Amino acid sequence: MMLLQRTMKMIGALDKGAMEQAQKHLDSLIKPPGSLGVLEEIAVRLAGITGVARPVIKDKVVIVMGGDHGVVAEGVSIAPQEVTAQMLTAIVTGVAGVGVLAKHAGARLVVVDVGVAGPLDFPGVQQRKVRAGTGNITAGPAMDREEAVRALEVGIDVVNREIDRGAGLLAVGDMGIGNTTASSAILAALGGYQAGEVTGRGTLVNNEVMARKAWAIQQALEVNQPDPCDGLDVLAKVGGLEIAGLAGVILGAAARRVPVLIDGFITTASALIAGSLQPEVRQFMIASHLSQEQGHRLMLEMLELAPVIHLKMRLGEGTGAALAMHLIEASTKIMNEMASFQDAGVSALDEGKTLKP
Amino acid sequence: MMLLQRTMKMIGALDKGAMEQAQKHLDSLIKPPGSLGVLEEIAVRLAGITGVARPVIKDKVVIVMGGDHGVVAEGVSIAPQEVTAQMLTAIVTGVAGVGVLAKHAGARLVVVDVGVAGPLDFPGVQQRKVRAGTGNITAGPAMDREEAVRALEVGIDVVNREIDRGAGLLAVGDMGIGNTTASSAILAALGGYQAGEVTGRGTLVNNEVMARKAWAIQQALEVNQPDPCDGLDVLAKVGGLEIAGLAGVILGAAARRVPVLIDGFITTASALIAGSLQPEVRQFMIASHLSQEQGHRLMLEMLELAPVIHLKMRLGEGTGAALAMHLIEASTKIMNEMASFQDAGVSALDEGKTLKP
Repeated sequence: MMLLQRTMKMIGALDKGAMEQAQKHLDSLIKPPGSLGVLEEIAVRLAGITGVARPVIKDKVVIVMGGDHGVVAEGVSIAPQEVTAQMLTAIVTGVAGVGVLAKHAGARLVVVDVGVAGPLDFPGVQQRKVRAGTGNITAGPAMDREEAVRALEVGIDVVNREIDRGAGLLAVGDMGIGNTTASSAILAALGGYQAGEVTGRGTLVNNEVMARKAWAIQQALEVNQPDPCDGLDVLAKVGGLEIAGLAGVILGAAARRVPVLIDGFITTASALIAGSLQPEVRQFMIASHLSQEQGHRLMLEMLELAPVIHLKMRLGEGTGAALAMHLIEASTKIMNEMASFQDAGVSALDEGKTLKP
Repeated sequence: MMLLQRTMKMIGALDKGAMEQAQKHLDSLIKPPGSLGVLEEIAVRLAGITGVARPVIKDKVVIVMGGDHGVVAEGVSIAPQEVTAQMLTAIVTGVAGVGVLAKHAGARLVVVDVGVAGPLDFPGVQQRKVRAGTGNITAGPAMDREEAVRALEVGIDVVNREIDRGAGLLAVGDMGIGNTTASSAILAALGGYQAGEVTGRGTLVNNEVMARKAWAIQQALEVNQPDPCDGLDVLAKVGGLEIAGLAGVILGAAARRVPVLIDGFITTASALIAGSLQPEVRQFMIASHLSQEQGHRLMLEMLELAPVIHLKMRLGEGTGAALAMHLIEASTKIMNEMASFQDAGVSALDEGKTLKP
């Protein structure tokens, strides 16, 4: 609990001075003001996050956390539970979606077992299991409060090590069969939605499985009565171990002022938990893509985040976040490599003819 | 005219066999079917374009063409005409937006003067001037039909050389003060729109300049009476030299079955011209981003193309197309580097529980 409390206290506000300097520099570059759109907004936000007017991103790291979900006993998924462990080994060997896209982004991949059901002894997978899968949330809590804190602190510890090694841009990814059900329950609990409003098709399940999912989510809320004003209560009662770990990664990144890209439905559930524990953390997150999973849009609206990629992806694993790294890095290149009107000897634009904002 | 005719004849249909093979391979990979969304659609399209089920992109090239516009005499822009030449030199030295983003994408940059008003003798800028800027389209045609063909053939020749050198993914970019006015006139002529419907703020011009632009576009259409059924007539009467060159690049890329990323408002006007000359060419284009310039959406709808990036950019130069290269390349990495369920030893999903499309 000490590490969690200390981390949350470290999270401050964006650096307004660095943001103003960044904006001024952007406006001096050889382009009409604002014409690089969201790339410019991101550049300014990165300045605010890092406290450096023209930040340079060196080391990029994608952190994928895995955990199992007792609720799979209710038949909410099309994949058997063993797939969680199988996919984590595929991810760490680089042949899963996120492995390919992290490599393409030039990012290092960190894979962590926070709560896989069975033993998972595979080279490269960090062994940080808090418990062997969550309880079935239709019958009781996912985990106890102390386990939730431990899983959060695993995430903080993992991200702290990566930042110590030089990580300057982080992305989060998830693996856990059944975790769209837990994430939907988190969204419903924190956003005040009914189960039906937040139940999506996940891996394109059919109507029968959809109905079981909606029932499981509703049941989890009724049985556990998570307190929407207490993020830790929501996490422990209807969350997941990888969801907790990733919330810890997000909090830890914000505490160290390192930007963190969130991915799809599951990692955004982690972001909701992180935001409910410490609202300031939201400014340190960047939304990567809009998932096809119903409910992701609602989550992003709650966090007041706008995604940069719209590719109808719904794979998770951190694939969207890894893919967005190139765009985020592009904004820093703009800041550091474009010339000003003066440097380049380009005639100034006639500001008298421009639209005044 | 020979080169143009020969090129247009070479443009065929997508390779359905390669597309089917690509789709089958995608469905074998360790992910729920279709879960990489548009990345999968792009992978299939790249297979159809190249005729290779699992294409590998080696050499990436961004081709930027510059030209001047006589219509600037009507006060339609906030930048003086000399900025066209100044920006082309900034682009070739790598310090303009597209230079930075092309380098970030790992792409080579090719800069061509197809019709800059003054002399432009700068190392690295290809000298292919067809004429020194267009005529003022509010008073007469931009160029004659023969000049339009020559500018198209400059583009075909430039792209053929790059493909001979190994280009496997192309992007197009523009530079030409006043070229949003010409592009709007092309859109109005080919799409049957009124000037007011297609006049945007370009570099955020104020209402007074906007009104002059709308007048200039309407006047250009009335004076020149471009024939909407004859793309070459529209190009010659209200187009631009860089717009013609880029239409040639697009046609040449399609003829050689190399995918080509279009950028914002201006290059999409080139794409409209290319599509009006040879409708099959549209299948070989990929839309990169949706520009903030009013009218870009209308153009993309006419071409039936959906952009992959939504970042409120409106700089042109090829910046959006260069930025999208990473995403397009990602789709080929997915095809070539992800494992199948069988290879990775991951348990199959229960297809009986999935939604049948």
